[in-house]
Amino acid sequence: MSKNIYTGFHAVEEKVKLYSVSKPKEISLKIFYSKPGPRIKKIISLAKDSNFEVSLVNEKELDSMVSSLPETARDHRGIILLVEGEKENSKNQIQLEQWITCCPENAVVIVLDSVTDPHNVGAILRSCDQFGASLMVVPDHRSADINNNEIIARASAGASSWVDVAKVPNLVRAVQILKSAGFWIYGADAGGTTLSKIKFPKKTCIIMGSEGSGIARLLQEQCDEIVSIPTCGKIDSLNVSVAAGVLLYEAYRQKLEN
Amino acid sequence: MSKNIYTGFHAVEEKVKLYSVSKPKEISLKIFYSKPGPRIKKIISLAKDSNFEVSLVNEKELDSMVSSLPETARDHRGIILLVEGEKENSKNQIQLEQWITCCPENAVVIVLDSVTDPHNVGAILRSCDQFGASLMVVPDHRSADINNNEIIARASAGASSWVDVAKVPNLVRAVQILKSAGFWIYGADAGGTTLSKIKFPKKTCIIMGSEGSGIARLLQEQCDEIVSIPTCGKIDSLNVSVAAGVLLYEAYRQKLEN
Repeated sequence: MSKNIYTGFHAVEEKVKLYSVSKPKEISLKIFYSKPGPRIKKIISLAKDSNFEVSLVNEKELDSMVSSLPETARDHRGIILLVEGEKENSKNQIQLEQWITCCPENAVVIVLDSVTDPHNVGAILRSCDQFGASLMVVPDHRSADINNNEIIARASAGASSWVDVAKVPNLVRAVQILKSAGFWIYGADAGGTTLSKIKFPKKTCIIMGSEGSGIARLLQEQCDEIVSIPTCGKIDSLNVSVAAGVLLYEAYRQKLEN
Repeated sequence: MSKNIYTGFHAVEEKVKLYSVSKPKEISLKIFYSKPGPRIKKIISLAKDSNFEVSLVNEKELDSMVSSLPETARDHRGIILLVEGEKENSKNQIQLEQWITCCPENAVVIVLDSVTDPHNVGAILRSCDQFGASLMVVPDHRSADINNNEIIARASAGASSWVDVAKVPNLVRAVQILKSAGFWIYGADAGGTTLSKIKFPKKTCIIMGSEGSGIARLLQEQCDEIVSIPTCGKIDSLNVSVAAGVLLYEAYRQKLEN
């Protein structure tokens, strides 16, 4: 049975909230904490409301529980959440084909091509949550950190509990599926239509490329339009999570105004 | 004499460009590389144009040169830049009082209160460069990573070579100085005026707080207005560098349209 260990106040809190709502039978949640600070008390009270097991342990026990985690997830700050029985693809990791059949009328989808740094993926997931994007599509590279639930839960401050993510074997094929479902495909890159001139349609898909090499050529060929954030400055480009945030903000702002 | 070691293609390239323009006498630049890939060749050619010393060494020598750096800066990817004689406060680290006397008519200043994660500070510096913000103001905490030139150069993909940064002993005092120079002070926080209703004035200062605790109370009291990015979603907030990016984008977009 799978065992996932979550650290980070936000990540732990959002997982507790998620499973309080859905209460899946096959899953067991246990909270272990060593310091009863205000933030931890709040999480414990949420967990107790849902009858999840809560144990006070000493700092060293927490240290040893996180010792197998990747370094970036090891700073437990006095509380960890152990979830047993989560499927490898957790609740919000879904099939694109299935999502398409029930996708909202008004949907923004973000596709990440070679964006693998967990800080960036996490920040983009938060922006998806905050600006109402419906789905993130990522390639199914089993080795990358974006496939590690524990790292992404933490890097996204818990947003990974709420935003649907489709992991696909082939991004070009995924974009073709979105296209035939009526999505207009934007590639975010230099030299395209300036963002302030874009009127995002109801079904919008935005592809973000890696900071080094941009969007892969085969994927570029699928784009209906290239969108560029107007910039000045000496260096090459924005941080990719900032660029995604600006695009998602603009799409959300337009939705609010209509 | 100070020795700074820079890693990361962007960071190295921007430092080389910076010192090619200014050519300060007291500074010596040396490039060491082990792999002549296309990106490295480009940097070497820039360095040679300015008569900087360039040496081919083996991978192990590079490894040992970066061994004293913080872990996040140790991945040299085949090239490092050694700069001797840089002042502790490098060229673009300036005095606020001095900057005020010659600040542009149309200036955006960003103030970071308790934002210390180098990923976030770096991404915000890139956004300052790309959206034409004139100055970043940060508290002068000698211990934080934002005072480490090597880490910030890398995390900002070289933008730290170009954006003016003022390190101040007291943020409240700094904001008062900006205020008396005619800046309108915005605090970025929930519950304020929604961003789409804001018309940024020519002299705009935006204060970003930490993700955990927001803007400190004494600093909040200095704000002329609170600005909020419209959001929906389940979690608390955007990543701070994304929030800063959206605000700087909007200020820049308005400037372009006028």
